[in-house]
Amino acid sequence: MDLSGIFPALTTPYANDGSVSLPDLKHNIQRYNGTDLAGYVVLGSTGESVLLRQAEMDGILVMVRESAAKEKKLIAGTGAESTSETIERTKRAAELGYHAALVKPPHYYKPAYKSEGLIAHFRRVADESPIPVILYSIPQFTGIALSAAEVAALAEHPNIIGIKDSSGNVQGTGDFVGATPPAFNVLVGNAATLYPSFVVGARGGILALASALPEKCVALFELIRLGHHEKARELQSVVARASRLVISELGLTGVKYLMDQRGYRGGIPRLPLQPLKEEQKKRLSAMLASLEPATARA
Amino acid sequence: MDLSGIFPALTTPYANDGSVSLPDLKHNIQRYNGTDLAGYVVLGSTGESVLLRQAEMDGILVMVRESAAKEKKLIAGTGAESTSETIERTKRAAELGYHAALVKPPHYYKPAYKSEGLIAHFRRVADESPIPVILYSIPQFTGIALSAAEVAALAEHPNIIGIKDSSGNVQGTGDFVGATPPAFNVLVGNAATLYPSFVVGARGGILALASALPEKCVALFELIRLGHHEKARELQSVVARASRLVISELGLTGVKYLMDQRGYRGGIPRLPLQPLKEEQKKRLSAMLASLEPATARA
Amino acid sequence: MDLSGIFPALTTPYANDGSVSLPDLKHNIQRYNGTDLAGYVVLGSTGESVLLRQAEMDGILVMVRESAAKEKKLIAGTGAESTSETIERTKRAAELGYHAALVKPPHYYKPAYKSEGLIAHFRRVADESPIPVILYSIPQFTGIALSAAEVAALAEHPNIIGIKDSSGNVQGTGDFVGATPPAFNVLVGNAATLYPSFVVGARGGILALASALPEKCVALFELIRLGHHEKARELQSVVARASRLVISELGLTGVKYLMDQRGYRGGIPRLPLQPLKEEQKKRLSAMLASLEPATARA
Amino acid sequence: MDLSGIFPALTTPYANDGSVSLPDLKHNIQRYNGTDLAGYVVLGSTGESVLLRQAEMDGILVMVRESAAKEKKLIAGTGAESTSETIERTKRAAELGYHAALVKPPHYYKPAYKSEGLIAHFRRVADESPIPVILYSIPQFTGIALSAAEVAALAEHPNIIGIKDSSGNVQGTGDFVGATPPAFNVLVGNAATLYPSFVVGARGGILALASALPEKCVALFELIRLGHHEKARELQSVVARASRLVISELGLTGVKYLMDQRGYRGGIPRLPLQPLKEEQKKRLSAMLASLEPATARA
Repeated sequence: MDLSGIFPALTTPYANDGSVSLPDLKHNIQRYNGTDLAGYVVLGSTGESVLLRQAEMDGILVMVRESAAKEKKLIAGTGAESTSETIERTKRAAELGYHAALVKPPHYYKPAYKSEGLIAHFRRVADESPIPVILYSIPQFTGIALSAAEVAALAEHPNIIGIKDSSGNVQGTGDFVGATPPAFNVLVGNAATLYPSFVVGARGGILALASALPEKCVALFELIRLGHHEKARELQSVVARASRLVISELGLTGVKYLMDQRGYRGGIPRLPLQPLKEEQKKRLSAMLASLEPATARA
Repeated sequence: MDLSGIFPALTTPYANDGSVSLPDLKHNIQRYNGTDLAGYVVLGSTGESVLLRQAEMDGILVMVRESAAKEKKLIAGTGAESTSETIERTKRAAELGYHAALVKPPHYYKPAYKSEGLIAHFRRVADESPIPVILYSIPQFTGIALSAAEVAALAEHPNIIGIKDSSGNVQGTGDFVGATPPAFNVLVGNAATLYPSFVVGARGGILALASALPEKCVALFELIRLGHHEKARELQSVVARASRLVISELGLTGVKYLMDQRGYRGGIPRLPLQPLKEEQKKRLSAMLASLEPATARA
Repeated sequence: MDLSGIFPALTTPYANDGSVSLPDLKHNIQRYNGTDLAGYVVLGSTGESVLLRQAEMDGILVMVRESAAKEKKLIAGTGAESTSETIERTKRAAELGYHAALVKPPHYYKPAYKSEGLIAHFRRVADESPIPVILYSIPQFTGIALSAAEVAALAEHPNIIGIKDSSGNVQGTGDFVGATPPAFNVLVGNAATLYPSFVVGARGGILALASALPEKCVALFELIRLGHHEKARELQSVVARASRLVISELGLTGVKYLMDQRGYRGGIPRLPLQPLKEEQKKRLSAMLASLEPATARA
Repeated sequence: MDLSGIFPALTTPYANDGSVSLPDLKHNIQRYNGTDLAGYVVLGSTGESVLLRQAEMDGILVMVRESAAKEKKLIAGTGAESTSETIERTKRAAELGYHAALVKPPHYYKPAYKSEGLIAHFRRVADESPIPVILYSIPQFTGIALSAAEVAALAEHPNIIGIKDSSGNVQGTGDFVGATPPAFNVLVGNAATLYPSFVVGARGGILALASALPEKCVALFELIRLGHHEKARELQSVVARASRLVISELGLTGVKYLMDQRGYRGGIPRLPLQPLKEEQKKRLSAMLASLEPATARA
């Protein structure tokens, strides 16, 4: 499976009563279907998966499956803290027709999960999973950064086909490329380092920013792919500026607000995540306004 | 409510098929009932709560409630990532007759949960909880260390009555004491710093080590309480040596193995936590053997 | 050599033209001579040693030697980044009559100085030093926390007689005690954890706060030594409050200002250290005012 | 001043008696003169500046000045812990004909050097310096990572013309580019991220690896400059592999050994830095052997 291209890390919209709004989710997917996004990633960190109940997760998986255009690749976040629950979630995603599972490392008992335990966990999940597994390194949330040696060991498993690296560490991304076979999919999880990551061998991106600015992220991918260095560098700088504010500073709450501004159904996140303050909204709107000419240009 | 004394952070025993073994749990509680432990803490970090399903947690809460001697104080770990689920779990514990809820901070979206968000979360939970709330700071697992300013702000809430500080930072424990009213219960979560923490004002301990060595932990508490400085210092040194190996190095898996050696039902933890290796078991047994004279003495 | 008691980490006063003011230093020493301080530590972190030239350091060593009362133990900070310069400084201190050398680990090339390199460095210095060597762990400045295993290995050297632990990690301080012979001097470097550290086996303190509040630090030491638990705990809480503001928040600049308020010659530090702001001075003065009744009481 | 191109961070060779060997240094410079290196950086972290005495530093500055080919730009590392000593060293470098000074932040009193203090330090140095100043961010050694806001503020000073970013954080490097005027020189300090850094706007590199492999580093720079994407990516991957072993794992000791293998005068570093072990030497030699075909190709 080749995971080239841009995948948005989907957000989860809520109705006024706080329940998951599947119609709003459908609305978003239908709009994304008209873009050149390579597929969709559901129930990732951007999807607030850790704030959802099991039934809610199931409803989301079903709705995205039903709404997605045929050609889109579907990836489900299925990592739980326990090995058995991770396997169960992965099997459910496979049953519903998802093409691959994105599995973050268990992390609560950080000091106890040594390399050996993490590798055993991922291998067990990959053994049991009916669909290919993608590793997921996001140390800012889990406190665990997968090492090149760990990824190399896991890449030998026939059912582990790639990694999403959200660490922001471009040298580390290059190390993953260097330590794995050419067919292994190294994907970057930060819009701010998309181009630099491609330069060290990444081939795709799973980006929260692509939920709000899919065209711009796809345009950057295309410029890189076609070797238009100067234009790519210019657009990368625009995207990095957006990413700095939206992702690094405001997080998924910022992504959701930006989606609202662009005609998607973003809304506010679930508590304990707080809605944006007025001042933050203004800065996001100003940033968006400044992007538009660039968007047009790209 | 006065939380003086020693509370064990209970472990969760499993049957051979991997399911929770309530009979083994009952066995443990019945033995603990004969000690001077002040009460029990269920579903904390030592109880593998993040590896359990909701029905399993419920079964554990019920069994401990039913097996505990009348005079024991019962504290339930109820912290989940989302505010609403934390409230729901807390209400369930109250319904079952628990005396207080131990609430760890939400932590997955660390960079987004600023002071303000954490304080709002705890206040909302305390507002809705029918029973008193105890804060829980365990940065080695959550990546979040509550600050003295945050604890001082939260201590103003009439339904927040204490904090379990598992950070190991004795100066910080003293800061919590200094920043809160005298009635606020500052409890220490590390056997290795029990005596030093009492010296800066802690009044109780919630200790994983007390699940395997309850008599020794209670004896240390008594020596401290009675002002037997030299003996307390000597026993603290013995306890710290045990804690270093069992807790700091081997974690809850070590506690469970040590329980097995002492006639409790410990067993192995759930995956991805790995069982001890032979070499680790040997070191634990040797440590236990070296403890016994000291135990006798104490 | 027994290093029981309280040692102030001396500050370095400057004249108006920015040069070191030896007369002001003499003034301070003469006042300290009238207290029960066990001795003096010169050219430590509090003494701005990294901001001084070699000739300045030499002048300071000479002046303290000449001004100190006969019974005071004299300890010189001699740690430099290179092994050879550390040895040279240590020999010079010995030549001038200092009783021991306090040696911080080399730290610039942190990732390269593995355990092995640090141990080799300290052993080489101890081999060459005419006077006993005291290790110095201050990770907040050096980024290197000596481990119990390293300290245990170094304690076997006949010319290494102790450690100053400024990490603030009381459990670690206890680990140093547990890992070394009874004659090895474990000294604490934080006034905020003086009593807790004694409870795990420390026997002395080298304290920046003792440069401004020597009587109070000595009084606390005496209460601990005599086993007056309640009074010790009360005074420890007062000292911790002072330490929090002066040491943790304002650093050596705060110590110097507090010295000015108490009749010592503190003054301002050398650039790039900045003088206090008016608001900080006011908070220090308010804290000092609130201390006085306690001082009287102690 | 335009600092495009590749600068080696020079090492310091020693004679058998441990003193600085100026003839060996001259030998190296004369060989480098025949390459397309843009200039030389002396007394940086790779040059063991923190292990040198003042007279030794002066000798090195003079020798490099005398040996360097006319067209090479000369940059001197002049950062000391105190502001006044930094200014003095900078003036001395200017006097000797150096074109710019590379100034690392003071860092011993990390918690006390707030943004404000660091900015004041750099401004004072730039005010007093007869030659342009280049900032230097190397958090792995200093514990201080300059922020984009700090660099933006400092870039307004007419005598601060660039930054060497050795953090390895490519997104941060891009942030420096985005936060400063086009003429500001953002240089990367890691060979492993040379190409990715150029993609976000860096224009030059100061590389320890270029002391041992100058041709390869220059070749990579040329491929990037000419837009030969595929070849650049391939060579970047080769260089990153070398950098991982030499720089990340073995540090400047590895650079020096690699220099020995390639006909330069590397030698062993000063204590407390330890010489390589046999096993490390073998891995370095094997890596070098594997590089040669690639070198030929490039």
